[in-house]
Amino acid sequence: MIFETKRRSVFKAVSWRIWATVTTAVIVLIFTGELTLAITVGLLEVVAKMGLYFFHERLWTRIRYGRKEIAPFVLWFTGLPASGKKIVADEVTRRLREFGLKVERIDSHDVRPLFPETGFSPDEVDRHVKRAGHLAAMLEKNGVVVVASFVSPYRQSREFARQVAGHFVEVHMRSTAEACEKRDDKGHYALARNGEYRYFPGVDVAYEESSAPEIVIDVDDTDFDVAADQVYDYLKRRLLRVR
Amino acid sequence: MIFETKRRSVFKAVSWRIWATVTTAVIVLIFTGELTLAITVGLLEVVAKMGLYFFHERLWTRIRYGRKEIAPFVLWFTGLPASGKKIVADEVTRRLREFGLKVERIDSHDVRPLFPETGFSPDEVDRHVKRAGHLAAMLEKNGVVVVASFVSPYRQSREFARQVAGHFVEVHMRSTAEACEKRDDKGHYALARNGEYRYFPGVDVAYEESSAPEIVIDVDDTDFDVAADQVYDYLKRRLLRVR
Repeated sequence: MIFETKRRSVFKAVSWRIWATVTTAVIVLIFTGELTLAITVGLLEVVAKMGLYFFHERLWTRIRYGRKEIAPFVLWFTGLPASGKKIVADEVTRRLREFGLKVERIDSHDVRPLFPETGFSPDEVDRHVKRAGHLAAMLEKNGVVVVASFVSPYRQSREFARQVAGHFVEVHMRSTAEACEKRDDKGHYALARNGEYRYFPGVDVAYEESSAPEIVIDVDDTDFDVAADQVYDYLKRRLLRVR
Repeated sequence: MIFETKRRSVFKAVSWRIWATVTTAVIVLIFTGELTLAITVGLLEVVAKMGLYFFHERLWTRIRYGRKEIAPFVLWFTGLPASGKKIVADEVTRRLREFGLKVERIDSHDVRPLFPETGFSPDEVDRHVKRAGHLAAMLEKNGVVVVASFVSPYRQSREFARQVAGHFVEVHMRSTAEACEKRDDKGHYALARNGEYRYFPGVDVAYEESSAPEIVIDVDDTDFDVAADQVYDYLKRRLLRVR
């Protein structure tokens, strides 16, 4: 909850008074041609109205009318490892913050280290993704825009995240496993192919596509900057409006 | 993020103008005795200053000075089943909302049904409590006061919740298992004593007390209303201040 301090109201009263009194004095001067009268009226006005302005401000701090919030939403990036989710999600987050929104960015790489006991079996991944979906929904419910990026390869837990959210925007970063492997500078795909990882999406488990994600980025034919444009334009057109 | 609409600024301009113009006209009337002049100056002022006020307001919507938020915190109720956590937490939440804060209330009874796979072994409970602590911290980080109530019998996961939070206030609802069992109208203690539940705090696993919780309520000697007073007074004294 945002409060406006009394000091803010005092500053506004002074700032307003300078402009307003000059206007009054000029009007009186033009109509009467009497400089002394203009100055006297101006000075009396300063005293009377500065106080009045202050109380007027305090009254309006209690009136909610016309104070609006942009309805928050959950923007969920999903796709194979190394499909560029993080890069595009980070760029969209930057733009949303620049726009003035409160944005929380959640990512598997930030959350997993806090819960080292979370494994990679489909069951464990589903639990992990469902918890992340719940977290996102709770933030959204409290006025925070959430930008999440999780491989989240299984339809079931993505659907859970969608259902608990108020307004859910799914961005599928669609790419072939081969193209992802080329982008993968950490060598995770190679390790998975050598059998050192199990349940690696794109290698030994499949990515389950959603029937109708809000946005599909064909990563292999799209610059990351252009992808960020596509996502941001979608949000701008449909969600970034004061209602 | 809160926006002030242009319409709010228009309404404020009109509201202000009524008070201010009457003041000006009265001042001019007193000094000149000329009613026509007083009215003319008043009317001109209306036109010139209503526009000026509007632009003054729009300018100030961009100035953050003097807009403050109360720093959020995590209020964490812990204690044996049927120690009264939920009742007191609900009452404190009601008061915090009445005070004007954005409060999220999280409770095991709301979270567990979403994750039915979560068991009751110490390991599962620790994971569950740590996830809840992470959720609370993320909400707090985004300006939301969190009131959590979880049995959270194990010190390790409560400490995790404390460490990830910014400002953590632990309320231990201290009561004997015998007294809790008398309050337990759902019969959980009886089922645990018959061996139908395992790992039931107060029956077959111990509640691990923290070394220094911020608030200890001796539930067996305290009315729930008085307990809510104790917690709310603590918050009021230390945290509910605009800084």
